[in-house]
Amino acid sequence: MQQKKIVLLICDGMADRPDKEHNNKTPLEVANKPNMDKIAKEGICGLMNPIGYGIPPGSDTAHLALLSYDPYKYYTGRGPFEALGAGLNLGKDDIAFRCNFATAEKKNDKLFITDRRAGRGEFGLEKLGDMLNFQIEDVKAIFKTSSGHRGVLVLRGKNLSEKISDSDPHSEGEIKNVVPLDNTNSSKRTAEILNKFTRKAYEILNNSEIQKERLNKGMPPANIVLARGAGKIGEIPKFNEKYGMNGVCIAGVNLVKGISRAVGLDVAEINGATGHKDSNIGSKIDACIKELKGDKHDFILINIKGTDEISHDGDFKGKVEMIERIDTVLAKLLEEDLDATIALTADHTTSVTVREHSGDPVPVAILGDVRTDEVYKFSERECAKGGLGVIKGSDLLNILMDLSERGKKFGA
Amino acid sequence: MQQKKIVLLICDGMADRPDKEHNNKTPLEVANKPNMDKIAKEGICGLMNPIGYGIPPGSDTAHLALLSYDPYKYYTGRGPFEALGAGLNLGKDDIAFRCNFATAEKKNDKLFITDRRAGRGEFGLEKLGDMLNFQIEDVKAIFKTSSGHRGVLVLRGKNLSEKISDSDPHSEGEIKNVVPLDNTNSSKRTAEILNKFTRKAYEILNNSEIQKERLNKGMPPANIVLARGAGKIGEIPKFNEKYGMNGVCIAGVNLVKGISRAVGLDVAEINGATGHKDSNIGSKIDACIKELKGDKHDFILINIKGTDEISHDGDFKGKVEMIERIDTVLAKLLEEDLDATIALTADHTTSVTVREHSGDPVPVAILGDVRTDEVYKFSERECAKGGLGVIKGSDLLNILMDLSERGKKFGA
Repeated sequence: MQQKKIVLLICDGMADRPDKEHNNKTPLEVANKPNMDKIAKEGICGLMNPIGYGIPPGSDTAHLALLSYDPYKYYTGRGPFEALGAGLNLGKDDIAFRCNFATAEKKNDKLFITDRRAGRGEFGLEKLGDMLNFQIEDVKAIFKTSSGHRGVLVLRGKNLSEKISDSDPHSEGEIKNVVPLDNTNSSKRTAEILNKFTRKAYEILNNSEIQKERLNKGMPPANIVLARGAGKIGEIPKFNEKYGMNGVCIAGVNLVKGISRAVGLDVAEINGATGHKDSNIGSKIDACIKELKGDKHDFILINIKGTDEISHDGDFKGKVEMIERIDTVLAKLLEEDLDATIALTADHTTSVTVREHSGDPVPVAILGDVRTDEVYKFSERECAKGGLGVIKGSDLLNILMDLSERGKKFGA
Repeated sequence: MQQKKIVLLICDGMADRPDKEHNNKTPLEVANKPNMDKIAKEGICGLMNPIGYGIPPGSDTAHLALLSYDPYKYYTGRGPFEALGAGLNLGKDDIAFRCNFATAEKKNDKLFITDRRAGRGEFGLEKLGDMLNFQIEDVKAIFKTSSGHRGVLVLRGKNLSEKISDSDPHSEGEIKNVVPLDNTNSSKRTAEILNKFTRKAYEILNNSEIQKERLNKGMPPANIVLARGAGKIGEIPKFNEKYGMNGVCIAGVNLVKGISRAVGLDVAEINGATGHKDSNIGSKIDACIKELKGDKHDFILINIKGTDEISHDGDFKGKVEMIERIDTVLAKLLEEDLDATIALTADHTTSVTVREHSGDPVPVAILGDVRTDEVYKFSERECAKGGLGVIKGSDLLNILMDLSERGKKFGA
């Protein structure tokens, strides 16, 4: 039998808990979503614990798990994935950070943060970021502005360590002196380098012409960079070597793009894919169909982030509408009838009442050469009755490969 | 969202197998128990393998697992938990034993056991136990009479080992010479110390005035102590450091109290909590409600032992009645409506027909911020249809923490 292509559609944080204020129903139970229900009805359904029972996953650890990379082994903080997602390349020993542009005031040679997000105003940030590529002793600082007031920093050099504290005070007040978190010389040295970077960045940013333009526009200066979440990527086996498939990621959000790049998936550039609720999800489905018809990739990961963002805002109605928007564009994929194995799921539950990720399992439905069951609706409680039972995140890719005639027989 | 308190109610050995002599029903299926059914109906249900599929758990290993301590790592025999439960303090290197008072006769300088439980008569045992605190070479023997004919012994000193055999012959006949179970000097030395303890205990007990009083009452002398189940507690991470919650144990039976003390739970003193079927279970529920209203503990473990005891007696009708008694007192807890997460389960199956623990999974129902399912009765076969699926004992606490907004997100 011919090998099939695999589509893994992850609607970020789409799963939920029943909401007392909405008739004890979840957004998936309320939404009108004939196409998701079609996948449930014509497919096999179940529940999935992305990491494990009762463990609230991050989007990063969950995506690693769904790509069958053990997050307890390969997750080394968000910094490296954000840097990769922003388009920087990372060597295995590079130290990567997530950063904010912020507003600082100098008093008695001390730096005090007065606005951790520099008023969220984006004007000039890209150019300011470009100024932060310089040498500190034998270490190269590489900076890139990403989205909003955010950026990523990479320190590249010999004997660097990720075991250091943040310069970000995580609130207004004096900037934190970075300290080593263990007794190694490399951590001590890396902490000193980051402190020097911060001081030098302040001098460069504060004296740049762009700050005057920001002030003229009534914006606070973006004259310092706060770093957090130091991490290094280490060595991750490549997806195509592990699974014999070339894969592509279709996503708007940098974190997911970064994880995909880390494991060696290609990252598609999608027009209007923002990683927010206003994202052009239709163009993501179009890109998926194009990949299914093409011959470059056998595995297509799609992430739609809006459902998570809306859940963090506690917006039940908005989540229902977002699910319905996703459902509408899904119609195109199902109409094409391209004989792929298609899995629909979430990376974690984000409860609109709790406004955070939770450890409740997520529903999963798989369309393809499957044993159908008696689940006709795609929802948390309906999928609990499905033929898949309760699987772990790390089981999913094996199941999809097996259903696509890509499984590797163990034994004879 | 506010963190909730957690109640874990463990009805010891409550789960069962269908009994042919009772219409192929289990005691849970026969009992009239509207409150347990209410938890099932308004909660989420499932099955749980306390240790693993088909593994008959002890109450000790099961309680460790339900507290999310891997019993394969932290279970070191029953001795240390019994000693802690009886109120002795244990250092990590102390060797602890469970003991029986027994009746011995000396013939040709050999000691023969004629009654392994000294006629089960408790008269004088507490005072006799107090006489067994003495020094053997550089080792301190610490003894405490617990309940019935039972006691606990701790050997405290340097270079002691738990790898030794029992002095208890486990039947009538000559007392066993304790031997080392490995080739280390510490095991050899500990075996010798325990043999010396036994001889010296016999001399002290046999010559005490209390034995004459026992004989005058027509009771056999309690003139020797049989030790078994050597163990040392080692280092166990503390519950509040692991889970960020202060916990309390409400139980009558020493073994459960001891496990709770071992992991750092407080142990509540409950009037009339005996650990037997006559236990004052109403006062346990009252204590639980008090804890829920107080601010000292976030986690409340309740153990009700009677269901297990009755199962070992093979008393189907008695088990049904005990379940109904528990159900009656549960009403008070449910009426309070204290917005806690409440889990109802058993630590293992104890079949009234087999009269022993079995590896069948136990039913579990959780009341709180959950995805309700279509289970309306709390029983083994109804809970099998629940939304939780089949979980492991070690999953339970993570699930309860997650539902109580106490989960720790892994990743970002």
